[in-house]
Amino acid sequence: MRKILLTIQYNGKNFSGWQRQKNALSIEEVLENKISALLGQPIVLEASGRTDAGVHAYAQTAHFETSSNFDIEKLPQAINFGLDENISVVSAKEVAKNFHARFSVKKKTYLYKTYQSKFNLPLFESTHAKTHELLTQNFDKMVLASRHFLGTHNFRAFCSTQTNAKTFERTIFDIKLKKSNGTIDFFITGSGFLYNMVRIIVGTLISVGEGKILPEEIPDIISSQDRKKAGKTMPAHALYLYKVYY
Amino acid sequence: MRKILLTIQYNGKNFSGWQRQKNALSIEEVLENKISALLGQPIVLEASGRTDAGVHAYAQTAHFETSSNFDIEKLPQAINFGLDENISVVSAKEVAKNFHARFSVKKKTYLYKTYQSKFNLPLFESTHAKTHELLTQNFDKMVLASRHFLGTHNFRAFCSTQTNAKTFERTIFDIKLKKSNGTIDFFITGSGFLYNMVRIIVGTLISVGEGKILPEEIPDIISSQDRKKAGKTMPAHALYLYKVYY
Repeated sequence: MRKILLTIQYNGKNFSGWQRQKNALSIEEVLENKISALLGQPIVLEASGRTDAGVHAYAQTAHFETSSNFDIEKLPQAINFGLDENISVVSAKEVAKNFHARFSVKKKTYLYKTYQSKFNLPLFESTHAKTHELLTQNFDKMVLASRHFLGTHNFRAFCSTQTNAKTFERTIFDIKLKKSNGTIDFFITGSGFLYNMVRIIVGTLISVGEGKILPEEIPDIISSQDRKKAGKTMPAHALYLYKVYY
Repeated sequence: MRKILLTIQYNGKNFSGWQRQKNALSIEEVLENKISALLGQPIVLEASGRTDAGVHAYAQTAHFETSSNFDIEKLPQAINFGLDENISVVSAKEVAKNFHARFSVKKKTYLYKTYQSKFNLPLFESTHAKTHELLTQNFDKMVLASRHFLGTHNFRAFCSTQTNAKTFERTIFDIKLKKSNGTIDFFITGSGFLYNMVRIIVGTLISVGEGKILPEEIPDIISSQDRKKAGKTMPAHALYLYKVYY
């Protein structure tokens, strides 16, 4: 058996998320069906992790095992041929037997895109979340606030109450805020993320930008472990799985 | 009569371009109808210039005259209310009687977005043009080539043969190429542009990136005034009117 790791880009707008579900179209289902048909044998994908409904990926990773000797160089193109145009396999490589797309992950980076405007802007609305114009002025406060998230913490306050998680300790390695012409991008790198964790951290930083939360209040919010003390859950359409590190 | 200047953002994908046309929906028509209904009097928009079918604008500008005393502060929101979601007025201000949205233009910047990949990428395909991966390696050659366009030249070789233009002299003030993670953005600033001129200049720089044209050949292509010697016309969906300077 060979183990093959795919890197996959997708626009999540029309999908119920990565994971297979009854009565809803998932990215996993589309890809598993396509690859199984191509190789003439059922395959099962193991991704680096799920992404929720509407969330995108620049570079999701997933492995599968197969006895097929299909040429690995030609595999991405063969999978992409006739595939849903919102999904594209950008690379394929063989990996060692003890590699696992989820368990071997060292860290992951998510990107959250926002724009600052009084009005809905047609060139941003499908890719970015709209926020208050005030954020541009309070950018430095948001950067200050972001530093309090770094390190290992119990992130229960930044996790959806609908979670099945058993442990809430996670490590944030890096948060970068990039301000450009009317936009702010949030790059968040961590060991792993709880349900909605990136979207709630960004929502909390935006509350700082709106003057509703002070940067120095972040440590208390974290230690409260109380979801109600953190900011709101930002919408899915502006969230991107950016990079998976092994 | 008051003269009012609007700044307008639009996603051009569903429109026949800025300018009114029979049997096709233009951005101008949608806006003129909306503003005329709002003010209770027919108004006529004069834009900084046309944009072609499928071309976008971060900040198109257009003026109109009106005897209405509608509060200028509330005008953008009032126009945007119920407007086609692919168009948004981002600001409105009163301008002097001798101001003209087209004739007063000092310079304009267009942005052309490309990505480099073997495969169609779902997060780029509606906003960027796909080009050869080779471009990333030959970036410096493209920058070298771009410098030959600066200054005042006869740009007939970089103009669609379907033009109505009478003069072909235009001035390019600046060309900036910005390479990011798998993308190259082209910012081109000039006094004014011939029909398809930005798209042909970018197509020519891409030919340089593909090794089909050498940077030092650009002056000869310009002086040939022969459209066939320049690169291809790049597609409309990746072109953005970025800024208009007065």
